[in-house]
Amino acid sequence: MLKLYIGNKNYSSWSMRPWVLLRQAGIVFEEVRVRFDSFEADSQFKRAIGAVSPTGKVPVLVDGDLVVWDTLAIAEYVAETHPEQHLWPQDAKARARARSVCAEMHSGFTALRGNCPMNIEADLATTGALLWRDKAAVRADVQRLVEMWTDLLAQYGGPLLFGEFTIADAFYAPVCMRLHSYGLPVPPHIQDYVQRVRQLPGVKAWIDEALTEQDFRAFEEPYRLQR
Amino acid sequence: MLKLYIGNKNYSSWSMRPWVLLRQAGIVFEEVRVRFDSFEADSQFKRAIGAVSPTGKVPVLVDGDLVVWDTLAIAEYVAETHPEQHLWPQDAKARARARSVCAEMHSGFTALRGNCPMNIEADLATTGALLWRDKAAVRADVQRLVEMWTDLLAQYGGPLLFGEFTIADAFYAPVCMRLHSYGLPVPPHIQDYVQRVRQLPGVKAWIDEALTEQDFRAFEEPYRLQR
Repeated sequence: MLKLYIGNKNYSSWSMRPWVLLRQAGIVFEEVRVRFDSFEADSQFKRAIGAVSPTGKVPVLVDGDLVVWDTLAIAEYVAETHPEQHLWPQDAKARARARSVCAEMHSGFTALRGNCPMNIEADLATTGALLWRDKAAVRADVQRLVEMWTDLLAQYGGPLLFGEFTIADAFYAPVCMRLHSYGLPVPPHIQDYVQRVRQLPGVKAWIDEALTEQDFRAFEEPYRLQR
Repeated sequence: MLKLYIGNKNYSSWSMRPWVLLRQAGIVFEEVRVRFDSFEADSQFKRAIGAVSPTGKVPVLVDGDLVVWDTLAIAEYVAETHPEQHLWPQDAKARARARSVCAEMHSGFTALRGNCPMNIEADLATTGALLWRDKAAVRADVQRLVEMWTDLLAQYGGPLLFGEFTIADAFYAPVCMRLHSYGLPVPPHIQDYVQRVRQLPGVKAWIDEALTEQDFRAFEEPYRLQR
């Protein structure tokens, strides 16, 4: 059976992507959760993941003796081994565009990712309002998201980015978490997309488990003294 | 005909990847070079690329009315539209591993990329020696490269990472440029791989054109006062 190594559900945005992809597609897999203790070389986390993957990072997908690391490579592998699921859009041009927006997420949106780390259980509206006021780069990242999603929802007709669920929605699911937790201002049709993503069964399952996790890590929550 | 928008050949490591891929595979394309002037919103560069791609970054591949941005999405599109070229390894497991190492490059090696920006025409041995002495994160990135390439060259038998030329070699070609220019210390078998990559016709063509470019940009060369 496929084995997916992930970090804390409340915090690990990269882990969320392939987990949501597999769950939403109904692909059976075993979850191996490696809790974050620290990211130092001698941490329990680094030792546990380092024994599985050469990069020492989550997520990692293990299929028999094959180890696939990094979300994009995992997504391509799952799509290739489950062609009947149409995890990429079937149309070649839409597929190229879906890969473009996923790759853009993979290497970009650094201001949003750096300033608004995912924290599903927290209400970070005040932090979000301060960031929105002070960080032009965060506003620019959100503006790009709004433009991208507006274009895709219009072109492919919704309800998701390329019509039905694809890898692109899984890739942007953690961003939907951030927009929600930090209360970043977006137009109503974008807010509606965020809510639709949050209500996908695969996403809802992740959120529910993140909320019950209760495994606080101070280094993931720089904006507060204690919970 | 395919149109590939790129930046300066001497500096633009991201542009180099798909250009080398297309050239080495013998796929005919039109090159559109948009010279770096600055990366401010009102720069000639940002205005020219912004008219083609929503991210305002190079590289961008244009195929008729289809715009594909970001190196990974471009590589997948070229591989998919030229299946006879076997740009990914043909074996499914090797292909998953090739995608893993490309995705790892795409989002990682930030210390090497940040401290050793590509500059093909420069001899940066002194800068490299200082970085090697002072920057543990650069040493760690190079150590990971050495481990990765050693494993792949052993497993697939060389001469390139997955035997014959694949997208993975194109993705790591700019790293080969950096190891060479900065004179970073690597074992002889890794040095040999770097030299083999430099001598690939597609890579050699890029290097030759970078050397004749002579389009100095101070913001790309923070380590010297003038050329």
